[in-house]
Amino acid sequence: MPRVSQDQLDARRQEILGAARACFARHGYEGATVRRLEEATGLSRGAIFHHFRDKDSLFLAVAEDDAVAMVETVARNGLVQVMRDLLARADSSETAGWLGSQLEVSRRLRTDPDFAKRWAQRSAAITDATHERLRRQREAGVLRDDVPLEVLTQFLELAYDGLVLHLAMGRPAGDLGRVLDLVEEAVRRA
Amino acid sequence: MPRVSQDQLDARRQEILGAARACFARHGYEGATVRRLEEATGLSRGAIFHHFRDKDSLFLAVAEDDAVAMVETVARNGLVQVMRDLLARADSSETAGWLGSQLEVSRRLRTDPDFAKRWAQRSAAITDATHERLRRQREAGVLRDDVPLEVLTQFLELAYDGLVLHLAMGRPAGDLGRVLDLVEEAVRRA
Repeated sequence: MPRVSQDQLDARRQEILGAARACFARHGYEGATVRRLEEATGLSRGAIFHHFRDKDSLFLAVAEDDAVAMVETVARNGLVQVMRDLLARADSSETAGWLGSQLEVSRRLRTDPDFAKRWAQRSAAITDATHERLRRQREAGVLRDDVPLEVLTQFLELAYDGLVLHLAMGRPAGDLGRVLDLVEEAVRRA
Repeated sequence: MPRVSQDQLDARRQEILGAARACFARHGYEGATVRRLEEATGLSRGAIFHHFRDKDSLFLAVAEDDAVAMVETVARNGLVQVMRDLLARADSSETAGWLGSQLEVSRRLRTDPDFAKRWAQRSAAITDATHERLRRQREAGVLRDDVPLEVLTQFLELAYDGLVLHLAMGRPAGDLGRVLDLVEEAVRRA
């Protein structure tokens, strides 16, 4: 039996993650059954769970990948831009599935201490990226300087959580673009 | 068999609602089994479901009652005060259960069109109360007048949704009191 290289294992892992993301996005966590994950990845459950302990670990790995991507966007463009991107894609079925998964993350954070512990690092990384980006903006003189960075960071995160919940409930986008203008204005120098 | 007056029926209905609210708050929607609802109300399932078609209808009735109370508080004190009250009670187990139920409402809005339809009126009533309160504040000259009331209303609702999701995920309250100061400041005249 030929030995499989680490590169091949990593590539297979990435393939599974990509297909599983599409499956969770389309069907939500509960709807993404093992059978559907098999169809999406083109692999048997045995092959999938060779790379990820169980469906839970697979879901967490997808969510962690998303969080890493979000950290990068926040560092580059800020959390307000992440919100604008999300709003622009709000009507797509992929976003609808992703939002459902986000609510699933929320539910499990509340009910599953192990999951909450594993998720805490990811959540902290997003907060750190937001805080660091605001710090640089303050240095550049575009940010208001009468409110601590920690409070501005939490303000932006509150708006982000609000946007996620609003869209996840399937409510119309309405004037949310102008609402995000207000959010941005509230952290900037007058 | 003596006839039961409408007043007696209404009183019984209110008793069931109160006990069911406590039960949903403590156990969440899924955890509030029919058996637990029987224990909480001291009534048989037959008696409970004489007043409410099923557990779903009972849950909706509790949520509608909460929404009516929220409309009254918003009309009197504004949505920012609703948020401050929620934050002040964030650590209580009753609030934890209530937050869980709110996420349950969110999940069902996304997945259950009938529930979404029944809930739409309640949601609109809260928006109307927020909008009306802002209109009066603008007349009183305390509100900024360079942004449409609809946008300010949505801004406050976004912050409210964000607070609900933040607390429902069990994240610490942190500096959220100061964040709410920022939210309030953003809608007021400079």
